[in-house]
Amino acid sequence: MTDEAKLTIPARRGKAHRVAKGQIIRVINTHGDQVVDTWAFNADDLGEFMSMEHTRPHIMKIVPAVGDMMLTNKRRPILTFVEDTSGGVHDTIVAACDRYRYAFLGVEGYHDNCTDNLHTGMRELGLEASETPSPLNLFMNIPVRPDGSIAFEAPVSTPGSHVALRAEMDLVIAFSACPQDILPINGVGHPPTEAHYTVSG
Amino acid sequence: MTDEAKLTIPARRGKAHRVAKGQIIRVINTHGDQVVDTWAFNADDLGEFMSMEHTRPHIMKIVPAVGDMMLTNKRRPILTFVEDTSGGVHDTIVAACDRYRYAFLGVEGYHDNCTDNLHTGMRELGLEASETPSPLNLFMNIPVRPDGSIAFEAPVSTPGSHVALRAEMDLVIAFSACPQDILPINGVGHPPTEAHYTVSG
Repeated sequence: MTDEAKLTIPARRGKAHRVAKGQIIRVINTHGDQVVDTWAFNADDLGEFMSMEHTRPHIMKIVPAVGDMMLTNKRRPILTFVEDTSGGVHDTIVAACDRYRYAFLGVEGYHDNCTDNLHTGMRELGLEASETPSPLNLFMNIPVRPDGSIAFEAPVSTPGSHVALRAEMDLVIAFSACPQDILPINGVGHPPTEAHYTVSG
Repeated sequence: MTDEAKLTIPARRGKAHRVAKGQIIRVINTHGDQVVDTWAFNADDLGEFMSMEHTRPHIMKIVPAVGDMMLTNKRRPILTFVEDTSGGVHDTIVAACDRYRYAFLGVEGYHDNCTDNLHTGMRELGLEASETPSPLNLFMNIPVRPDGSIAFEAPVSTPGSHVALRAEMDLVIAFSACPQDILPINGVGHPPTEAHYTVSG
């Protein structure tokens, strides 16, 4: 079950991968500034998936950290945070971007987006996700201020830093290297980049 | 289209209601301590529904207030907060309770829950919701602390206080008078209660 090759999440694109229970997924922020929207689905039932709204009241916080377990919409463990060298800033409260978001931001015509990337990545494995769950936005910096307001800020992660997640069931993980280039969430002064991942164990 | 009768959301139960664009829904916290999980679906397409994760990055805050517009998963306005006499404490980050939640909390056997209440309420109108969106938890007090930790606390709302929401499309609204009686989110020292609502305009 070992597959330690460094695999690419292409810039602005999605990628899905089957992972066995117990394997470790390392998500590497290769260039340091790239948000990676992340989903996980039960390999045997795509209607069960990692859920931010079910995880938050279990871990009693809005951003998971090492040792925390992500739950599905059936409140079963699906991923555990086992390493994080990225500075620990991630987001669980913002939806995946989609064509409606870019239209609102003034983009005319098609813009790559994480929602389409999820479904395209799954289809490359012959799978169809029936929903677009709210993603775990790795490396995404959405501060929640004491007054409850939020902001879109650049990642704090550094090039080559990573998060490692342990699969708690046989699952399909899906990533999108977020193509957001209107707001500064993928850093400033450069276009969105690719990221990488490994699956091992 | 006027229907100003005070209607009941029975204690521990769900209730759904068709609402025309422009009508005002007043949700009354009759006894002051009752959380009301709230969903809204496009009447013409139940696959489009009020989405907390799409709303937060639009209103740039985690708790909506008067003047804020709630968006669907297609980022279209579905409800606007037009009045709030409850103290303004609501929740958008915690999933509806479900049988898995009560099992985790140590309940043996069936416990009423907001997820089942949503679907039962919809079925009473002959409708089937294909998903359980993350709800707008009216009157629910989930403080998010500066370190990102959260807590379950009693409502700050007072008996008879209310929220008014304007329908921005023809929609089906669904409520659940949350049956949570293990954690103190519906107040302490008394069982969960009924709440009321009106639809006018």
